[in-house]
Amino acid sequence: MTKSETSQKTKSTNHKVKNISVVKFGGTSVKNIGRIQHVAEIIAERSKIGPVLVVVSAMGDTTDYLVKLASHCSNHPEPRELDQLLSVGEQISITLVTMTLHAMGVKARSLTAHQIGIFTETVHSKARIVDIEIDRLVKAIEANNIVVVAGFQGVTQDGDITTLGRGGSDTTAVALAAACGASVCDIYTDVDGIYNADPNVISGARLLPRVSYAEVVEMARLGAQVIHPRAVELARNYNVKLRVRNTFKPDHEGTVIDGGEDMEIVRTVSGVAIDKDQARVAILDIPDQPGVAGKIMQALADKHIVIDMIMQAFHPTSGLSSITFTVHQSDVKDTIATLSELKDKLGASEVLSDPDIAKVSIIGAGLAGQPGIAAIVFSTLGEAGINMKMISTSEMKLTVVVAKGDAEKAAKLIHKAFELDT
Amino acid sequence: MTKSETSQKTKSTNHKVKNISVVKFGGTSVKNIGRIQHVAEIIAERSKIGPVLVVVSAMGDTTDYLVKLASHCSNHPEPRELDQLLSVGEQISITLVTMTLHAMGVKARSLTAHQIGIFTETVHSKARIVDIEIDRLVKAIEANNIVVVAGFQGVTQDGDITTLGRGGSDTTAVALAAACGASVCDIYTDVDGIYNADPNVISGARLLPRVSYAEVVEMARLGAQVIHPRAVELARNYNVKLRVRNTFKPDHEGTVIDGGEDMEIVRTVSGVAIDKDQARVAILDIPDQPGVAGKIMQALADKHIVIDMIMQAFHPTSGLSSITFTVHQSDVKDTIATLSELKDKLGASEVLSDPDIAKVSIIGAGLAGQPGIAAIVFSTLGEAGINMKMISTSEMKLTVVVAKGDAEKAAKLIHKAFELDT
Repeated sequence: MTKSETSQKTKSTNHKVKNISVVKFGGTSVKNIGRIQHVAEIIAERSKIGPVLVVVSAMGDTTDYLVKLASHCSNHPEPRELDQLLSVGEQISITLVTMTLHAMGVKARSLTAHQIGIFTETVHSKARIVDIEIDRLVKAIEANNIVVVAGFQGVTQDGDITTLGRGGSDTTAVALAAACGASVCDIYTDVDGIYNADPNVISGARLLPRVSYAEVVEMARLGAQVIHPRAVELARNYNVKLRVRNTFKPDHEGTVIDGGEDMEIVRTVSGVAIDKDQARVAILDIPDQPGVAGKIMQALADKHIVIDMIMQAFHPTSGLSSITFTVHQSDVKDTIATLSELKDKLGASEVLSDPDIAKVSIIGAGLAGQPGIAAIVFSTLGEAGINMKMISTSEMKLTVVVAKGDAEKAAKLIHKAFELDT
Repeated sequence: MTKSETSQKTKSTNHKVKNISVVKFGGTSVKNIGRIQHVAEIIAERSKIGPVLVVVSAMGDTTDYLVKLASHCSNHPEPRELDQLLSVGEQISITLVTMTLHAMGVKARSLTAHQIGIFTETVHSKARIVDIEIDRLVKAIEANNIVVVAGFQGVTQDGDITTLGRGGSDTTAVALAAACGASVCDIYTDVDGIYNADPNVISGARLLPRVSYAEVVEMARLGAQVIHPRAVELARNYNVKLRVRNTFKPDHEGTVIDGGEDMEIVRTVSGVAIDKDQARVAILDIPDQPGVAGKIMQALADKHIVIDMIMQAFHPTSGLSSITFTVHQSDVKDTIATLSELKDKLGASEVLSDPDIAKVSIIGAGLAGQPGIAAIVFSTLGEAGINMKMISTSEMKLTVVVAKGDAEKAAKLIHKAFELDT
């Protein structure tokens, strides 16, 4: 049970479901009974073409409400119990969608992760899927049911309920699409698709009709959270074409996400993204010794904390080094606790955190090997007097960390510098 | 899977848990976070003596809220989906109770019916338990956990969620007590115990320190719904002693319910009960032929409709007979639909229903063979001008059906006539 999602071997290979559509609706799409009615109509319409497997998130604010309830019972709810509690959110929404389909005369059946057998590792609050039993699913579909599956949740081999963490329902949808051999997975959400920048921030932002998995992963990791990068990576590994579509404009085409092999690389920079949910953490003045960074990373990995933009700086005169990285704000507390435990053991002087940061990134399949791009970014920000706290580059992205208050201005300037609005 | 609860063979015989207490808390006891805190304190206190298995209902009005949500999606929610929806009520309450115990430093673990394996027949909304796997339960208890189990729910062999219907959580508690070999099952509720009449209606009503299973079954069937008769019958079959106690007065002894073998029969009449949730249904002028009553009863049984006070009247001149009985108000619609289908087949003239009825009953182990009792009841009501629409008697009860508006007056007069207030 230690295989990860991306290396999962579903039992799908012999059980593909012919011509099946997998469609996923997020929490805003099923926020209330009126919207559930609307969603049911989309599903019923699609079921005229062939079998449909629906994945649904919890209604609107249900998860937040449940988290709040839990916080009234305990300051640190045990993750196992919290997962058992949170999973009811999707159990409610799948039954209501199914009942609404019934009321429309459409045959349907709701299934929880436990009922299907969406098996995950025994990790709570951010479990990865390791295996999916599709026999029950296939049986229900073959009996002409639209199957409505609870997203976000899984079950361990011992029958404990797990949740998949951020982007969980997207991941459920893609994993099921892979398991059933679906060629397309539609992610219905409350926006028109994927833009080359946040249209709420940058007025010239344009909708992309098609992007590659890799570009979306970078955009998503950098804060453009229309679809979770984890789900996109899974889709890439199983070659599932994704379509991001607007629930409230079902006739719009949205954005297709696929391998992009036959796309000409016409865009050097495909988008700009802002992520304000990050914090910077540093552990300072560690006496240099082999394996220090590894020990720190392992301790954080053991707590399932995802880190990014790792930088190690070595001061030759003192012989001390410091390690700085970014983490999601929700992980800051755990990160500091973990590093503080390590501090004395490693002989470090201090653990610091800085919540006042934002990542501004540009993404593009054509970025690699074009040093001119970085020059444009740095000089654009420099001329505007925006200070860069950290910089990192990779195959298809360039990220700078700036003060939160500078993020939108920086993104607008970059968007303009690369003429993304034309 | 056709065995009933009362004939269930749990796998308990080889898996008794030494010295275990089974305690059940109803919806009003866990109505809000404050009450859950209080309940957790009772549980923690009891866990000092030995292992505790807790059964919890859904919080306060959760079930009603969920039923309402469902009704907005469909006028006739499919029972399978409704059960899948309603079961979240208990899933929420067990996790909150467990988290609260954790916050108090007490080891605990919540388990749903699916997780334990509380198997029922494949009938929705009123399934009966057929088998309980206690391996997982025992394992959790042996790891020193207080186990907090979702009442009211079960699971079929196919993994579909079922609910047990009225009194479901009481039934879960007793079934688990039987499966674990517990000698006592405490039913915590919002009243002090079992009274010889409804204290809200009859001011002289007295708390009974001890009653027999049989008397409670009769009282409960007749509307004194402190504990569901189904749970009491299960307790009788497995010789589980029940204690009905007040959650808000945990030091009070409440009422013990047991076989009563060593009780002297000192009470001729042990209580008076009112049930206003009944309706009278009749099918009229059926041409007499063998097996008519059987056909009608079978058709109702197939729909899982429980009927009571069956009376068949034969008119010698016309050769026609009529059958009258009472059903719970919630079953009236289904009952009429079922009878209407049968009407033409049987050649009957009409199906009638009368919702304006109430049952007033007296219960007592010493009732049998004391014709003077009935005389007192009939003359007491007659003198007060209260019309009796139906009468039925059995080993330890006597029931009269009166107009709803007369019920309380009738109960008060009878209570006084038998000096139950002294």
